[in-house]
Amino acid sequence: MKFLTYKYKEQEKIGVLSKDENKVIALSEVLGLNPNISMIEFIEEYRDEYEEKIKKAIENNKGVNINEVELQSPITVPKRNVICLGKNYKEHVKEVPSAMDFKGGVPECPIYFTKLVNRAVAHGENIPLHSDLTNELDYEVELAVVIGKEGSDIPENEVEDYIFGYTILNDISVRNLQTKHIQWFLGKSLDGTCPMGPYLVHKSMLKFPLELDIKCYVNDELRQCSNTREMIFDIPYIISNISRGLTLKKGDIISTGTPSGVGMGFKPPKFLKGGDVVTCEIQGIGVLRNIVK
Amino acid sequence: MKFLTYKYKEQEKIGVLSKDENKVIALSEVLGLNPNISMIEFIEEYRDEYEEKIKKAIENNKGVNINEVELQSPITVPKRNVICLGKNYKEHVKEVPSAMDFKGGVPECPIYFTKLVNRAVAHGENIPLHSDLTNELDYEVELAVVIGKEGSDIPENEVEDYIFGYTILNDISVRNLQTKHIQWFLGKSLDGTCPMGPYLVHKSMLKFPLELDIKCYVNDELRQCSNTREMIFDIPYIISNISRGLTLKKGDIISTGTPSGVGMGFKPPKFLKGGDVVTCEIQGIGVLRNIVK
Repeated sequence: MKFLTYKYKEQEKIGVLSKDENKVIALSEVLGLNPNISMIEFIEEYRDEYEEKIKKAIENNKGVNINEVELQSPITVPKRNVICLGKNYKEHVKEVPSAMDFKGGVPECPIYFTKLVNRAVAHGENIPLHSDLTNELDYEVELAVVIGKEGSDIPENEVEDYIFGYTILNDISVRNLQTKHIQWFLGKSLDGTCPMGPYLVHKSMLKFPLELDIKCYVNDELRQCSNTREMIFDIPYIISNISRGLTLKKGDIISTGTPSGVGMGFKPPKFLKGGDVVTCEIQGIGVLRNIVK
Repeated sequence: MKFLTYKYKEQEKIGVLSKDENKVIALSEVLGLNPNISMIEFIEEYRDEYEEKIKKAIENNKGVNINEVELQSPITVPKRNVICLGKNYKEHVKEVPSAMDFKGGVPECPIYFTKLVNRAVAHGENIPLHSDLTNELDYEVELAVVIGKEGSDIPENEVEDYIFGYTILNDISVRNLQTKHIQWFLGKSLDGTCPMGPYLVHKSMLKFPLELDIKCYVNDELRQCSNTREMIFDIPYIISNISRGLTLKKGDIISTGTPSGVGMGFKPPKFLKGGDVVTCEIQGIGVLRNIVK
């Protein structure tokens, strides 16, 4: 079940990919839902009984040709800020400057910050260059986890129950603002700096714990290449840890950090320029490609 | 116009205080709005024409006695994370430890982070002690600004146009988590750590720029005492600065930092204990009192 949000004949709808992944099936039709339902509302009212109906529709392999729809980010407007992790892959910790003195080279605790997202950028949409504010625009491919069940104090071994699915998030970062303002929020939150998608893949399609290849290309150059098993703090730990005393809600998005190979890690740095094509890829989820303009 | 959210006969409503501040007038009745309208929805659809009708109702001085209603936080569930400022009063910068080396003792740029608020704590409600997670619970009285008009790249001299009003926010902080996780988000976001209220005061009631006395008492001891004119970065600067390349939306909340006198600034520190009464007070807005339990 690869869920998506798309525009077809001027209407924004949510759907699921057909078996051959060439067609889009409207979920409102399969499940008899309000035709204007958003992905967040769908996650909020999702029930296990839906699965059989959706899977039957996928098998039927009928729908609108994917070339006829305009892809949106699966979650166009996140309800709350995306919760992000910093420095969560060992090799990445080594490449970025730090005022913090980590024992053994890795943080002892996850580093959390948030990203305000006015509207997530879809696969195929442009990433604004923000040239009046920065010449240090950077990419960060990340696996994002979407919460499907409200909870706090979630034990590590129950974390999968609280997950709805997964998507790709490119945590576009404005390095000069990130550094200058000390806390990272502002440098992570400019308009158009959250490409996310192309699909929201239901957890039933990926074996837990996730061991997925994760890559980012800028133009034809492979810049980031790792596997989600290389995270310092894994998904069960992260979600259990955040939820201690803090209630996570359906539709919350947690982005699990980026592997090494970001632009600021090179000497000299390789920041994004106008016209660059950034391609983020996670095994089993898909390809998220955007042009910097 | 002091707006509030309250429960009366099991129903959550929004209202405005009468002239003598002893009665609550339902805004849905004054303006012919949906009786279930939330404060965020009210801000989103607010029009200048409302003012005359509301002011007439205030003058009439009729309504439900304030002792008969159960006060809620004026914005019970913020739409997005609250944007907060760290180290924005000079005397406060001196009292808190810092890994950062500020020239002249103050940050060169505002420090922004966010606070996730599942539900804001009302005046009179309890603040949970979270004793399983911390013995370093701390208070921070702050002036919070609520945005009333969507915008980005807002010039400093137009900032007041973009403000809806003001309230008091107690940025309850879990110091051990704030330090341990390096970025401050998690230590600021536990459930029940955002008392806010008692009223949302419309900007027309306060002279701009704001020069308001701001105080916090723990039990009978005055711990924080300053004036909002002592901010390092003032409200025009902050809102203009955040909005560069980032669209602020109606209902967004920006909390402008705390003066000196927080618990962690004392030697030895004076953190909150069960039974402590925390009273935050800002001139022209009101008193926000909560017990730690």
